[in-house]
Amino acid sequence: MSEAVTAAPVREQQKYADEGTPPVRNCWYVAALSDEISRELRERTILQDVIVMYRAADGRPVALQNRCAHRSFPLSKGYLEGDRVVCGYHGLTYDPSGVCVRAPMLKTAPTYVRIQSYPVIERAPLVWIWMGDLKRADPSLIPEHGWLADAGWRSVGGYYHVVSNYVPLHENLLDLPHFSFLHADNIGTPEYAAAPFDVSAEGNKVRIVRRVDNAAAPPIYAVPMKLEGKRVNRVSDSWFMTPALHVAFASIRNLDAASGERVDYRVNILHLLTPETQQSVHYFWFMSRDFALDDPSAGKWLKDSAVKAFQEDKDALEWICALVRQESGRPFTESSFASDRAGLAMRKAILALANAERSA
Amino acid sequence: MSEAVTAAPVREQQKYADEGTPPVRNCWYVAALSDEISRELRERTILQDVIVMYRAADGRPVALQNRCAHRSFPLSKGYLEGDRVVCGYHGLTYDPSGVCVRAPMLKTAPTYVRIQSYPVIERAPLVWIWMGDLKRADPSLIPEHGWLADAGWRSVGGYYHVVSNYVPLHENLLDLPHFSFLHADNIGTPEYAAAPFDVSAEGNKVRIVRRVDNAAAPPIYAVPMKLEGKRVNRVSDSWFMTPALHVAFASIRNLDAASGERVDYRVNILHLLTPETQQSVHYFWFMSRDFALDDPSAGKWLKDSAVKAFQEDKDALEWICALVRQESGRPFTESSFASDRAGLAMRKAILALANAERSA
Amino acid sequence: MSEAVTAAPVREQQKYADEGTPPVRNCWYVAALSDEISRELRERTILQDVIVMYRAADGRPVALQNRCAHRSFPLSKGYLEGDRVVCGYHGLTYDPSGVCVRAPMLKTAPTYVRIQSYPVIERAPLVWIWMGDLKRADPSLIPEHGWLADAGWRSVGGYYHVVSNYVPLHENLLDLPHFSFLHADNIGTPEYAAAPFDVSAEGNKVRIVRRVDNAAAPPIYAVPMKLEGKRVNRVSDSWFMTPALHVAFASIRNLDAASGERVDYRVNILHLLTPETQQSVHYFWFMSRDFALDDPSAGKWLKDSAVKAFQEDKDALEWICALVRQESGRPFTESSFASDRAGLAMRKAILALANAERSA
Repeated sequence: MSEAVTAAPVREQQKYADEGTPPVRNCWYVAALSDEISRELRERTILQDVIVMYRAADGRPVALQNRCAHRSFPLSKGYLEGDRVVCGYHGLTYDPSGVCVRAPMLKTAPTYVRIQSYPVIERAPLVWIWMGDLKRADPSLIPEHGWLADAGWRSVGGYYHVVSNYVPLHENLLDLPHFSFLHADNIGTPEYAAAPFDVSAEGNKVRIVRRVDNAAAPPIYAVPMKLEGKRVNRVSDSWFMTPALHVAFASIRNLDAASGERVDYRVNILHLLTPETQQSVHYFWFMSRDFALDDPSAGKWLKDSAVKAFQEDKDALEWICALVRQESGRPFTESSFASDRAGLAMRKAILALANAERSA
Repeated sequence: MSEAVTAAPVREQQKYADEGTPPVRNCWYVAALSDEISRELRERTILQDVIVMYRAADGRPVALQNRCAHRSFPLSKGYLEGDRVVCGYHGLTYDPSGVCVRAPMLKTAPTYVRIQSYPVIERAPLVWIWMGDLKRADPSLIPEHGWLADAGWRSVGGYYHVVSNYVPLHENLLDLPHFSFLHADNIGTPEYAAAPFDVSAEGNKVRIVRRVDNAAAPPIYAVPMKLEGKRVNRVSDSWFMTPALHVAFASIRNLDAASGERVDYRVNILHLLTPETQQSVHYFWFMSRDFALDDPSAGKWLKDSAVKAFQEDKDALEWICALVRQESGRPFTESSFASDRAGLAMRKAILALANAERSA
Repeated sequence: MSEAVTAAPVREQQKYADEGTPPVRNCWYVAALSDEISRELRERTILQDVIVMYRAADGRPVALQNRCAHRSFPLSKGYLEGDRVVCGYHGLTYDPSGVCVRAPMLKTAPTYVRIQSYPVIERAPLVWIWMGDLKRADPSLIPEHGWLADAGWRSVGGYYHVVSNYVPLHENLLDLPHFSFLHADNIGTPEYAAAPFDVSAEGNKVRIVRRVDNAAAPPIYAVPMKLEGKRVNRVSDSWFMTPALHVAFASIRNLDAASGERVDYRVNILHLLTPETQQSVHYFWFMSRDFALDDPSAGKWLKDSAVKAFQEDKDALEWICALVRQESGRPFTESSFASDRAGLAMRKAILALANAERSA
């Protein structure tokens, strides 16, 4: 009697997602900022798919596969005709659902010819896209971010193209101990570094809460809140919501508030991660405040502080990505500590989601 | 009883050559223009082989493998000694047949050491090379192009390095419907786009003929022929001759010719495609006229018109090639229409030729 | 009865190392020049391993894996704290043996966390590293090069990054016939090219000795030795010592020395080859003389002569490497001659060493 010899499953014992895990597809990702989508055709690669985006005549955003079904011409090099995109090679014309509604060389439109149309939802200033199984594209899965469009808040933001897988980027966002080293000159104050934190997982969400009581307000917040020299309580409530979104809710309570002075201040920080390829990420971010709404210098201060820290994170993650690639042939076993439990919980969640898609 | 498990043939159902089909080797390709070959050693890659070319003392062109049999030094970095090329590393010397006729470290020439010599034939202004089975290198297989050297004709021409496989380039040349889109501002006039055409296959040749009767002469021809405002009959007779050559014979008949005025005009357009690698092509072209022989402005007009259209084709094919590579992991099924039948016949012919070489 | 089907061993018949042979690991290689190692962290890739090097507080050189065991941050982007390197991401701190002696997020140092520490030995002006099996890291295996630090000698030297495998570079160093071609305008004098030579192999060492008697001193030596117009005997005794080191001992005897004039002159040339990757080499060299110690123009002349020749070798090897890569899909059988026997003996020795490591 003989037995079939089978190749051992690759990474059989893997417990956590890493830079080799295929990005989760069944998830709403930010495809673009609202003001990036217009009546001009825009190409962007998302989860390895090359996509063309535009606004229909009524302003509705559209995302289509950027490849004509006929001879693979990139539709982004063609032009718009009303709601439809016309291929620049032979004039095949697709409607927003991806159906070919005109082929100039045929008398009848070959409506059996189709390209992929991606569900998109605009929640200004963001346009979300669904890259996965159409049957599961439920808009209620988009995490709440209403403050971005709320008159009681004011936001600054930016974009980075990061040459790294998205998993280490998410891990960085759930990681507190790195503040004292990577951001030592910036946002990594000693009190904050030493503060205890709580980690909890709720389904595929991971939450990390840190409190610092009765300490000097850190410069990033003290300056725009005009709390320099004041004692504050500070809470950071940070969430891995989905593979596409991490949000941190920071609140500051002024313990030295005189009567009539403002006591509570909030800052919400959104990190929107959209894998471009296995090893690169579109990284959009917003920092929103509920104070100093009409003081542009407050926004500038917050943005400058964030940009310095985010650039440090981008550099670190790109260095890591380059090193891991260069050493890809060499065995490496990662060491983790209790302080990594938030990141590991996130990586476990992403791996479970990715594995479910692979076996589906 | 057991059965051998065999790997399924790759692309078993493939009917048409595409960008993954190995270029046909048993074919005469243009290696160079006559004036590119001189007593200077010139390196060029053709069908993935790196080749060195030069003229022997009597002017005859020579093409050899550009790799010394001893230690792989590129012979193009050596020098000529009469008809022979001397390796710049150790002085091994090869004659035009690729035989090593001198090795300075040996008393006797090691004539058993050989590099590949490629059959070349000069039909000025072209030098043709045979990359395939030597037993099949029949010069009569070179398609006729005598008008290039005929005193009754005058030619303009050029060269492009195109980052694309050669199959989509050939398909572009057999493709009429793209004129109205890719070349809408240029040679794609509405009458021409709407004209019927006939496709026929003869062995491995594919022919496409289009007629437009009693229409305004298009600017590309009207200007150099001085037929602006005249009515003409126009025929384009376009041939995929071999994997190396596409030729279009255009003729224009002036319907408004006054007595004694010229009636018939001809333009022959040669497209000479030499694969460099799987994804790049040396593309030589010539546009020849039998009128206005001594009017350089006629040549300039034709060349400028051609260059504009050819650059549009080159851009399109390079965009397609880049997109197909970027999406190489994603399944894609090409759609084709009746108007593609000339291109599909050509792709069927190329696939048959390529498959015959693979099984040989 | 059935038989297991096994994959045929790759290159079963291979007799000589070539550009595809994995570099030998059980060997001392030059990691750096002494003056390249300081209290600044320096990254260098050696045999595909990415390494960080620095000096401990007492000046001792240290070489560690440049990858934090925690989240793969390149340690070279961190900083030194006494003898220890601190990771710039989370502050993990490693001692020179690679043990993690501090992790700021833990109360107790996780000394079970380790990165690779490489044995290094400084023999100024060189720092040697052992990339192989630690049990075999015997310092006595470093070939003697005491003259570099001897007051009776004076040295000039340099560094090249060569984009080539190290085997063809070693072969070039054992190769005499190439002098008359690659270095025809330089060190390849006709007498030297025509001189007989002896090759002998001793274990894994290969020696090649060439004598030229009663000939004009070649310019490279005649000028700094002030022997222009004099007749000399000349011996070159050249050794492939290890995969890391080739040394040539040249001696010149002045046959026309007047009474009281110097008779014997020596030049030792060290070639130190450290594979960076499979296709690139760190190439350090020294040319040492036992004459004209206080005459900088002698050193300058020797260095200028060497640099011209070494640049010609570097160019040749990089052209070869590029050509071999470009043609990697095409079968090629190398031809060798009696004059290659030193190089072939070296390649046989390297292949035996590499194969022993593969089967270990």
